Amino acid sequence: MNNNDYQQLTRTFQRLSRFSHLSAIAGWDMAAMMPAGGSTARGEALAELGVLQHQILTDKKVGEWLAGAQQENLNDDEQANLREMTRAYQQAALLPESLVEAKSLAGSRCEHAWRTQRKNNDWQGFAPNLKEVVRLSREEARIRAEASGSSRYDALLDIYEPGMTSARLDVLFTDLKSWLPELLQAVEKKQSAQSLIDPQGPFPTETQRQLGLDVMTSLGFDFNGGRLDVSSHPFCGGVPEDVRITTRFDENDLLSALFGVIHETGHARYEQNLPRQWAGQPVAQARSMGIHESQSLFFEMQLGRSAAFLKHLLPMIQQHFGNQPAFTLDNFIAWSQRVERGYIRVDADEVSYPAHVILRYEIERALIDGDIEVDDIPALWDEKMQQYLGLSTKDNYRNGCMQDIHWTDGGFGYFPSYTLGAMYAAQLFQAARKALPGLDAQLTDGNFAPLFAWLQQNIWQHGSRFSSAELITKATGEELNSRYFREHLTARYL
Amino acid sequence: MNNNDYQQLTRTFQRLSRFSHLSAIAGWDMAAMMPAGGSTARGEALAELGVLQHQILTDKKVGEWLAGAQQENLNDDEQANLREMTRAYQQAALLPESLVEAKSLAGSRCEHAWRTQRKNNDWQGFAPNLKEVVRLSREEARIRAEASGSSRYDALLDIYEPGMTSARLDVLFTDLKSWLPELLQAVEKKQSAQSLIDPQGPFPTETQRQLGLDVMTSLGFDFNGGRLDVSSHPFCGGVPEDVRITTRFDENDLLSALFGVIHETGHARYEQNLPRQWAGQPVAQARSMGIHESQSLFFEMQLGRSAAFLKHLLPMIQQHFGNQPAFTLDNFIAWSQRVERGYIRVDADEVSYPAHVILRYEIERALIDGDIEVDDIPALWDEKMQQYLGLSTKDNYRNGCMQDIHWTDGGFGYFPSYTLGAMYAAQLFQAARKALPGLDAQLTDGNFAPLFAWLQQNIWQHGSRFSSAELITKATGEELNSRYFREHLTARYL
Repeated sequence: MNNNDYQQLTRTFQRLSRFSHLSAIAGWDMAAMMPAGGSTARGEALAELGVLQHQILTDKKVGEWLAGAQQENLNDDEQANLREMTRAYQQAALLPESLVEAKSLAGSRCEHAWRTQRKNNDWQGFAPNLKEVVRLSREEARIRAEASGSSRYDALLDIYEPGMTSARLDVLFTDLKSWLPELLQAVEKKQSAQSLIDPQGPFPTETQRQLGLDVMTSLGFDFNGGRLDVSSHPFCGGVPEDVRITTRFDENDLLSALFGVIHETGHARYEQNLPRQWAGQPVAQARSMGIHESQSLFFEMQLGRSAAFLKHLLPMIQQHFGNQPAFTLDNFIAWSQRVERGYIRVDADEVSYPAHVILRYEIERALIDGDIEVDDIPALWDEKMQQYLGLSTKDNYRNGCMQDIHWTDGGFGYFPSYTLGAMYAAQLFQAARKALPGLDAQLTDGNFAPLFAWLQQNIWQHGSRFSSAELITKATGEELNSRYFREHLTARYL
Repeated sequence: MNNNDYQQLTRTFQRLSRFSHLSAIAGWDMAAMMPAGGSTARGEALAELGVLQHQILTDKKVGEWLAGAQQENLNDDEQANLREMTRAYQQAALLPESLVEAKSLAGSRCEHAWRTQRKNNDWQGFAPNLKEVVRLSREEARIRAEASGSSRYDALLDIYEPGMTSARLDVLFTDLKSWLPELLQAVEKKQSAQSLIDPQGPFPTETQRQLGLDVMTSLGFDFNGGRLDVSSHPFCGGVPEDVRITTRFDENDLLSALFGVIHETGHARYEQNLPRQWAGQPVAQARSMGIHESQSLFFEMQLGRSAAFLKHLLPMIQQHFGNQPAFTLDNFIAWSQRVERGYIRVDADEVSYPAHVILRYEIERALIDGDIEVDDIPALWDEKMQQYLGLSTKDNYRNGCMQDIHWTDGGFGYFPSYTLGAMYAAQLFQAARKALPGLDAQLTDGNFAPLFAWLQQNIWQHGSRFSSAELITKATGEELNSRYFREHLTARYL
């Protein structure tokens, strides 16, 4: 009754976690620090580590320990940990090492070249690299689908959002598609009657950075365990003990970087508050990409763009950039809640954002299931952008199908997480509001402690103890649905 | 005749090199980027990787392949590579894994705490950590000494400067001690008659950084394969494809960071120009710490503080900081060549520098050989500083025995490399001067191509093909001796 097999597993997963630490930091460095000439060697080094992690995780002994541990006397947390270990093992053991290494190498190459190719609108240069990534991702999807009996795309989707299927997504997204276009039009019509004063730049990068740091501090980011840096595609990386968030600054656009920082701070606080007592174990990790995104969107959209928070934020902006006509409270709130369809997903407001995601979801699903090829993407992108948002991306690859990093290293199945996150976030914020009387006044005062304590209590501290469905049901009393997202958008924008 | 065993070895060492890449970048990050809260997790991650590298390198199969490869048909370069592989294997196979891991952990902890403790002059806090590091280094030295039949200290010295012994060092250092104190006094006497104008700060950090980048560019640093950053203890890290040098800025002291950057650029150009055709193999690595230091001192001292180069440098400084009375050519040269005994090794001029090294050499040798204990260090440091440089470091740990990073992670045996490097550098520069007529005029014109081509031809391109002794003999026609160092100091300073 010593739980020997379980102990062997915790040692193995701790070791894996330490290698993931190095991989995360080297990956952050690659995006935020590394000069171009380091690319090949870094890609090879990360691929080598990836192969090693894959070997350790898929070792026959791990399979035996997993079987043995099922018979051991484990408490609830240990059983949850064992469930997540089993999931990780099964996910990994399916893929041959050669495929893992090839994927890592092709992804590194494609991603690194993309950083230049996107600037140059160079689809011709990008497409061959992407084809290789797609070829390997299809192979991965084929192997995973065979094992799980799901469709190929669903097999990839499950990596990022365990338990989610395209059938369920189709229901949720079809619902969104049924009312969002009308809502978007109505909001645009309403807002077109307002006359807004644009903030006047330039807003120097260094001052924006200082403001970003102040806002992160006010939102509880722990700088003893994290940093803010710059990368061409903002992300939250690193490890729970040392969270690295990035942003990109535009001297003519104050709010883009600022709300980007608020968004990544949501990811970061989730990571920084994951259960430290199980550090290094799968159960201590974030639940899923959708839940992760729910935290960033909770910060950026539910909290960040609420009138209550904007009242707190405006004086901080004035402190750094002085006053100007755009910085009256009414104008600032209206400006921060402006809805405007555009090309770029990461710059999109929360009303038009789901259209960007649904477009990508439909294209990547068809791509992985083999219904279309890489060469079909630009035309399809253009067609769907015209259909959903009335915008053409013809010959505009930079602001069309080359705008995102995700596909460059084979992250197919990830995009739906963004809109799942938006729906989770609305549902969570509504539950928090019910539980916390006087919330708006607290937010305007910059007193976020009760709200964050609620998140800590209901989301952060649980890591992966529960499934996404259990987690959201425990926190909000019901399963995920789009009602609160719709109510939120209607209340804020109409 | 397929050289199968040798091929197995090259694959294994390439794999090790990729893990070293990740270790180097994570190590750089730890010093230049990481917030304090990441320390424990990073230390554990690096230790885990260290254990893995140790396991791979010391695998029984590697020993068998090494034996087998001796019988294979290898060309000269392959034989040199095999010699370096054998050396690496023998160095590593001696140590038990538990000791490797314990050393890495204790070193990480001690080094990280030192970053704060040094600022606080906190010897009481530092000593217990250092004792643990010393305990483990002594254990390492004992094991190595038993295997090689050398003294304990010599066994550590050999890690950094293969082939060097304390017997040989004693000869070289005794020679230095016989003429350096007198030379130092004579220089100080001569210089005390000059009246110098001090450069007037402040020199803003960002402008210093820009100047540093310009000087690095002029010295051929490849920014496509490297960066300049800030750390509390400047170093040259990263990998040949992506060299990371660091400096520290003091707004009141222009030349300290500037010559620090020139110094690290010497290290960096060696790394960036190591033989790429053998990348990942031991033969492609820098020859030794002494040879490495010879390149940094070649840049900083032989080239950087020569009147010819200073004529080139001064206009760059004026371009960034404007003019001031200190920036006449005569005053600037005199100021850059000023000799002044002080507490801090890294700030020392090249005349008093060897005293700092000999002091450390004598203390660390006694410490490793068990003749003294950690608690004895401060008094001994004070005593020797008084004896060699007439300065007391009583109760001044920060500027005494806590000033250097080396001992914090067990780098005993490293310090002699600095003065070996100074002697190598003087001997190399003299040989280059003989080979390159009109050198001084070229340097003043900023035309460094012929000089760097000479270094590329004689040092950089060879990696570890030859022993240090062979390398220096091929390049200069004679073995290492202190004659050229003495001639250089006498010519420049008297």
